[in-house]
Amino acid sequence: MSNAAAAAQRIITRCRELARISDVPGQTTRLFLSPATREAHALVGGWMREAGLRAWTDAVGNLRGIRGAEDAPRLVFGSHLDTVINAGAFDGPLGVLMGIELAHAAAAETLPFAVEVIGFSEEEGVRFAKPFLGSLAAVGGLDDAILESSDKAGVTVRQALREFGLDGGAIADAQLSPRTFGYLEFHIEQGPVLDDERTSIAVVHAVAGQTRMQVRFRGQANHAGTTPMGRLRRDAVAAAAEWIVEVERYANVCAGLVATVGKVEVPGGAGNVIAGDCEATLDVRHAQDEVRRDAVRHMMNAAERAGAARAVSVESSTTLQQPAVAMDELLMAAVEDACGRTGCSRAQRMTSGAGHDAMIIARKVPAAMVFLRSPAALSHHPEESVILGDVEAAYFAGLELLCMLRDDRAMLDRLVARASRCKGEVRDA
Amino acid sequence: MSNAAAAAQRIITRCRELARISDVPGQTTRLFLSPATREAHALVGGWMREAGLRAWTDAVGNLRGIRGAEDAPRLVFGSHLDTVINAGAFDGPLGVLMGIELAHAAAAETLPFAVEVIGFSEEEGVRFAKPFLGSLAAVGGLDDAILESSDKAGVTVRQALREFGLDGGAIADAQLSPRTFGYLEFHIEQGPVLDDERTSIAVVHAVAGQTRMQVRFRGQANHAGTTPMGRLRRDAVAAAAEWIVEVERYANVCAGLVATVGKVEVPGGAGNVIAGDCEATLDVRHAQDEVRRDAVRHMMNAAERAGAARAVSVESSTTLQQPAVAMDELLMAAVEDACGRTGCSRAQRMTSGAGHDAMIIARKVPAAMVFLRSPAALSHHPEESVILGDVEAAYFAGLELLCMLRDDRAMLDRLVARASRCKGEVRDA
Repeated sequence: MSNAAAAAQRIITRCRELARISDVPGQTTRLFLSPATREAHALVGGWMREAGLRAWTDAVGNLRGIRGAEDAPRLVFGSHLDTVINAGAFDGPLGVLMGIELAHAAAAETLPFAVEVIGFSEEEGVRFAKPFLGSLAAVGGLDDAILESSDKAGVTVRQALREFGLDGGAIADAQLSPRTFGYLEFHIEQGPVLDDERTSIAVVHAVAGQTRMQVRFRGQANHAGTTPMGRLRRDAVAAAAEWIVEVERYANVCAGLVATVGKVEVPGGAGNVIAGDCEATLDVRHAQDEVRRDAVRHMMNAAERAGAARAVSVESSTTLQQPAVAMDELLMAAVEDACGRTGCSRAQRMTSGAGHDAMIIARKVPAAMVFLRSPAALSHHPEESVILGDVEAAYFAGLELLCMLRDDRAMLDRLVARASRCKGEVRDA
Repeated sequence: MSNAAAAAQRIITRCRELARISDVPGQTTRLFLSPATREAHALVGGWMREAGLRAWTDAVGNLRGIRGAEDAPRLVFGSHLDTVINAGAFDGPLGVLMGIELAHAAAAETLPFAVEVIGFSEEEGVRFAKPFLGSLAAVGGLDDAILESSDKAGVTVRQALREFGLDGGAIADAQLSPRTFGYLEFHIEQGPVLDDERTSIAVVHAVAGQTRMQVRFRGQANHAGTTPMGRLRRDAVAAAAEWIVEVERYANVCAGLVATVGKVEVPGGAGNVIAGDCEATLDVRHAQDEVRRDAVRHMMNAAERAGAARAVSVESSTTLQQPAVAMDELLMAAVEDACGRTGCSRAQRMTSGAGHDAMIIARKVPAAMVFLRSPAALSHHPEESVILGDVEAAYFAGLELLCMLRDDRAMLDRLVARASRCKGEVRDA
């Protein structure tokens, strides 16, 4: 445990070494079941074995390593090894490398449970335009339709698995051990909050639910010079603007809500023509589904009002509706305890605004996440980074958790019992 | 004069006959110096001659006809014969055909002045992307740079003139007679005002000045889910929306002002990304330049304020700055008198929000315009129309004006004297 700084440094150095393995020379791009992924598995699998883990690639291409008895209660550390195009070094790999270090350190102890590390194969969803394939398979949620979907070259998931040397028919084998009692993912925040608060780490209490919509305002195109202001105008842009202002105002005063109109377009528009048509997107996220649904309802009413004032009609369609996923209270409390004991000030709780493998795994297994500060909020960017001290703090917390679970049998039992109760429940319905 | 209804019907019938002459079969598209224009000249020139006018095509391709002594004081009726692509039948031709009918009717009288009718060759600016070429030449404002500009096929104005059988070197010959004391243009409103007020005609007191701008809001692209609301967001769309609302609000309360944000775009935007960049257009028009300039100043300050509240910077550039052009008070009063005497209720005054040949001619000669109602505000559209009674009312007013100028020598003298004072002044500087 005295060598935490060295472990943190090794995690960072290995993330950077892994970042050099890419499907596109000169950048970091590792797609699902690609040549670079095979190479990454060889490298990370080697590190797993050095750390005393038995490593293998499962049926969906997840790299997995385990230390301890197969039939023992199991704690899983995981994150993903695939990347976006032209990625940074830490989004995903940080959590995998952290898991390996913790499993290695835990070798010095005699733990009453096994430790597994998973490097999920497809979280970003670049190749098949569908994210979370690796974690979905781990919870038995990868259906046949996904296996038959194709990438841009027309290759299906099933064919890609076969070409990688895997058996698409054995996907069920990728499922987590039924004895898994907890899943912990370390991940960079990918946002500005911790950086702004000069804070190293935070415990994620929920992954926000999302609603994404397309909103279309339809007025009447008219001559910008000859059509007076007022009731003879049916200006779709003016209606959309009033609505966007209200979307922002509402989100500003609703704690924890984020709402974004990221895209606005006037199809066929011109500077001297009143817009007859204005299309916009809406993205609303909150940790509580009811708060999000209320917000969306309010915003769509506001769109109707802004339209009605200008004889502009409003059409909308929902393109994504994803419920919030709560992290497990008991596991989260244990992680917070661990953070407190390491001498960090008690880590704050925060919502994850982005999706993560933990959100999928939580369907079957109590899950928790720890965010590490993202300097300058950079992510999905080659300059993405982490701070050594933050990685050390996270490592300390992980190690402390392992010690707590070793020393406090009652706590371990509670977690194992809780996991049994969760089993089979779809927890985000 | 008893046959006004027949004259009005003939104007409409001839406009529709002319609309069948097109460069594109099945629609009405007559471009500058095109084959259809040559055919249109033959048709309309024939009508001019039937009406007792001496007709010719001038050096810039304007079709002109005159009745009366060459050296007499001259009143000009004019509008344009070219069209936009897939146009209606009345935008332009209505004023030319009206002029021919009035010149014809006036033949029954012995007028102490000559009457000229001009069908301008290029008002819409489709072929060379430059409008008003015909009227510019008539006031000596067509410079060499324009003559050397090319259409999409690489043909210059000068070459096109030559191919049409004209002498580009003799453009100066296209100038109005120095004895011209007034210009009157009948034109469809191309807006909804008269239609909404169930009014036949209006006297235009000014062509609005215009400012057109490109406004660019630059914030910071960020993850829509992980970036909380408030000061960590630099949302270019939210800033633009607040600004657009203020543009509309200001125009709504400033009499006679129109302001339009016709185009909004988020280059490279996505629904789940806070917009780092938002581009919008601004079009502001008013009959008084100072009111327009104040409005633009206020709106750009509002853009700065909306930006500053979100750490979004604002850049803008002016793409068009066109001063308002007042119609001539004396001629306008005479036209209003004529309207009153025909038994129409006194015609209302209105601003033209769009540009017209009258605006160019006003640089050298006292000019006036009469708008005829545009049913359903349709223009630049195949279904553009006029109402027979409105055309009759306009014809009555024109004929009454001719009678007034015949009978009231003092008024004619005042107009001629006023025209002499205007000569050579650039009146819209």
